[in-house]
Amino acid sequence: MSRVSIYDTTLRDGSQGEGVNFSLQDKLLLTRRLDEIGVDYIEGGYPLSNPKDFEYFQAVRDLPLTHAKVCAFGMTRRKNAPAETDTCLKALLDAQTPVVTIVGKTWDFHVTDVLGTTLDENERMIADSVAYCKSQGREVFYDAEHFFDGYRANPEYALRTLKAAATAGAAVVVLCDTNGGTMPERVAEVVQTVKRELACEIGIHCHNDCELAVANSLSAVRAGAAQVQGTMNGIGERCGNVDLVSVIANLALKYGFDVLKPNSLTRLTETSRYVYEVANLNFRNGQPFVGVSAFAHKGGMHTHAVAKNPTTYEHVRPEAVGNERRILVSELSGRSTILTKTAKYELNHDKALMTKILSAVQDLENQGYEFEAAEASFDLLVRKVAKLHKPWEVDKKLKLYKPWFERITYRVNIEAREAGTPITEATVRLKVGDQIEHTASEGDGPVNALDGALRKALVRFFPSLTEMQLVDYKVRVVNPRAGTAARVRVVIESRDGTDVWGTVGVSENVIEASWLALVDSIEYKLFKDQEASG
Amino acid sequence: MSRVSIYDTTLRDGSQGEGVNFSLQDKLLLTRRLDEIGVDYIEGGYPLSNPKDFEYFQAVRDLPLTHAKVCAFGMTRRKNAPAETDTCLKALLDAQTPVVTIVGKTWDFHVTDVLGTTLDENERMIADSVAYCKSQGREVFYDAEHFFDGYRANPEYALRTLKAAATAGAAVVVLCDTNGGTMPERVAEVVQTVKRELACEIGIHCHNDCELAVANSLSAVRAGAAQVQGTMNGIGERCGNVDLVSVIANLALKYGFDVLKPNSLTRLTETSRYVYEVANLNFRNGQPFVGVSAFAHKGGMHTHAVAKNPTTYEHVRPEAVGNERRILVSELSGRSTILTKTAKYELNHDKALMTKILSAVQDLENQGYEFEAAEASFDLLVRKVAKLHKPWEVDKKLKLYKPWFERITYRVNIEAREAGTPITEATVRLKVGDQIEHTASEGDGPVNALDGALRKALVRFFPSLTEMQLVDYKVRVVNPRAGTAARVRVVIESRDGTDVWGTVGVSENVIEASWLALVDSIEYKLFKDQEASG
Repeated sequence: MSRVSIYDTTLRDGSQGEGVNFSLQDKLLLTRRLDEIGVDYIEGGYPLSNPKDFEYFQAVRDLPLTHAKVCAFGMTRRKNAPAETDTCLKALLDAQTPVVTIVGKTWDFHVTDVLGTTLDENERMIADSVAYCKSQGREVFYDAEHFFDGYRANPEYALRTLKAAATAGAAVVVLCDTNGGTMPERVAEVVQTVKRELACEIGIHCHNDCELAVANSLSAVRAGAAQVQGTMNGIGERCGNVDLVSVIANLALKYGFDVLKPNSLTRLTETSRYVYEVANLNFRNGQPFVGVSAFAHKGGMHTHAVAKNPTTYEHVRPEAVGNERRILVSELSGRSTILTKTAKYELNHDKALMTKILSAVQDLENQGYEFEAAEASFDLLVRKVAKLHKPWEVDKKLKLYKPWFERITYRVNIEAREAGTPITEATVRLKVGDQIEHTASEGDGPVNALDGALRKALVRFFPSLTEMQLVDYKVRVVNPRAGTAARVRVVIESRDGTDVWGTVGVSENVIEASWLALVDSIEYKLFKDQEASG
Repeated sequence: MSRVSIYDTTLRDGSQGEGVNFSLQDKLLLTRRLDEIGVDYIEGGYPLSNPKDFEYFQAVRDLPLTHAKVCAFGMTRRKNAPAETDTCLKALLDAQTPVVTIVGKTWDFHVTDVLGTTLDENERMIADSVAYCKSQGREVFYDAEHFFDGYRANPEYALRTLKAAATAGAAVVVLCDTNGGTMPERVAEVVQTVKRELACEIGIHCHNDCELAVANSLSAVRAGAAQVQGTMNGIGERCGNVDLVSVIANLALKYGFDVLKPNSLTRLTETSRYVYEVANLNFRNGQPFVGVSAFAHKGGMHTHAVAKNPTTYEHVRPEAVGNERRILVSELSGRSTILTKTAKYELNHDKALMTKILSAVQDLENQGYEFEAAEASFDLLVRKVAKLHKPWEVDKKLKLYKPWFERITYRVNIEAREAGTPITEATVRLKVGDQIEHTASEGDGPVNALDGALRKALVRFFPSLTEMQLVDYKVRVVNPRAGTAARVRVVIESRDGTDVWGTVGVSENVIEASWLALVDSIEYKLFKDQEASG
């Protein structure tokens, strides 16, 4: 099985997608996840372009990555100036990544009309930039922008630019179909030609403007490309980059290539959904391989046939990519997912309990819950279900759920005048043990006011809550077509000195959904502290 | 230019998609639209399966179609019984369409294990059904279900089933990749083989389970297939059927085939959106060729190059498919983006105004605004800045901003008991002209209640607001590290019968941010209607 390298540019090219905006924390979370499944290269950003990307490259050095190499992306040096003093190359090197990826011009027209320089100077810009970064100890990948268009316009020059990069020491030369307009048979033909001309490895970078990005990437690999660049779920500008999820699944399952870490293919669905959650985007139900509908069957005879022999109506087993078959109308999480998630509690011997957890998760998923980015809420759910089950047996590993406090009422009032920020007040009445706490707080917004009143009521009983702060807050509509009457999912990320955890709440009311996620976050913190102290 | 026939099965196979449900009226509307652009065959339904499909075939006879032939879909006769008395074939003929499409089994395993009959009887079922329908004056297409899987399992038998159909008089034999698992090079190879063996025309019918349906359909056409079956926008079960929109655009623009009626290609975007509307589905922004983002550009230098020469960053002209170029306003945006973005207002000669717009955008971006998914808010911003500038000069092209109403106060109250959804009430006091409106509304949540109260106050003055609905609502924290005290950005997507538009609001208070986005959405709708009516 020959290896195909997966180069993920979700954090850089993906972030060019409309409505996609990653915080620094998002980028670090995604880096860890991609590393876990065995993505080979993770392009973290464009260090010159903005301070967030620069901070990322500092912070990523502290992540305990096990497999992936982080790459910084930048352009060739400016025209008519030495590489050694170029600001962009300096930023690229300051990122201190093992790999740098340099993009340069292939298309003669772009060189003369967009860059405004000569063909020879562009060639030198490529060679100098690659050579300089290599001399500084970096592995250098060279992205040939608009390669397929450039090669059509002027094949001789297009090849010269690649040779400049290869001769200067680029480890991989990546052919980019930047405008996404090339057809698969053409990709194959061009990759074959280039491969004959160059000694280094070839990569491919496709966009989906003709709905052919996956076909083009596979076509390139079959013609000899050793690296595929793309983004998770195909996010990216215009029609997106190639979806690495489909590329990975096809390479592994249809062509038998070695991709990712061993056994990681079964984490593809979970990883895809995690990326959607972090990017605050809805899943695409019909997404190949990992979509919620990808293995959904309806129709009597059809369903029967699937039950009898799945290969009759399924081209691959859903479990192969960590997805699951759905029969009828249900959004069900599979048993295997739950088994994996609950492994740490050592409850697996108890089949009846596992079934109860599965069914609780399914109920909640039907209401719009998602536990992908809310493992703390999942943890509480396990405690709750286990408590209702057989406390004496499962209590060994797991503090069973108990409510740390009970809500009696809360009220939020928002009042706005002609202009300016409204005034918000929240009042909370709680029972903690046998005491009633009634507190009030103003806040910048309703959730902040509610959070303030909650903490005011609780901190006297649980002083460790002062260590905890909320670091992110996301709201997503679960059934978007219902407009403002839709059900919303709130995901909150909290942290204390040692941990970061996510919780989730779903309601038609954004305040109630936020309350649920806030309460989970606080309760998780209290259980965590309790277990840490024995 | 050789002709490729387009066979649309949106109304039949497309309606198998999750959440897709066409009324009789919907089906008739779609039939007319597809006929108008020159789709060659329209598969209207499965007359045996339900009364709605039967009624459709009656009603469609009265439509003044100019080009398309309507097709009825059904199965081969039942095993061990004559075609002449078969209920399914009777229903098929009763539909009185010029074309009938009969689906039959190719895969030996399906014949014996799913159908429970012999390979020979299945062959006779195919031959009899085709021959009988042909004897009744119909043009017969034969859909070979699971052809590619069947051909892999037992090529000799798979070919025999096709020959049975062809010999019995089928005009087209359609190779179906029913499970969507076949790779493009295999499709090409198999189509070529089949073409050598059969005298009749070959069709192709693909599903998108590997994200290769478009590539597979194109591959089949290049190997000699003369008909492509698919659905508009790729709707259909699991991962969908092949998207005919992409197939048509690629066949016409990339390979120079003759498809549709002359000049219809420019109606592709409008037709795609019409199908989404009728199907009550949201547009896919990143859809190739016709998506709202398909020709959207962001990033300063990039945008500059597009403005200078669109072919630098566009593989086809957006106008070729009736779409349009969009320049996104984003954190990466510079002056050239704003220039392009405001071109339609013809303000570009006024440098001072452009500077003011740019600086307003940058101010708002620093506060956390993002205009890339909120073009309607950007439009209002241009109107506002222009009004403060030199109204007498810019008023020619652009209705300057005026507030359609003024807020005096709003108040939202959320009250929760021990458990369950809280009760939410909003009150709104507005001034419209010289009248004061004071309304109240309950709602599922604060934003829904506020929206309800706002509309109640305004609809008397602006009845067209009843056409408008909110289709998506997103909340994102702008400075996540501040937790619940963070500033939030709300993006709302609204639509009416013809357009979809996005608006944005930013505040530390999620309710205020929602209010701002709601107000922008309403004002944009009112300006739009005013300009449309001259």
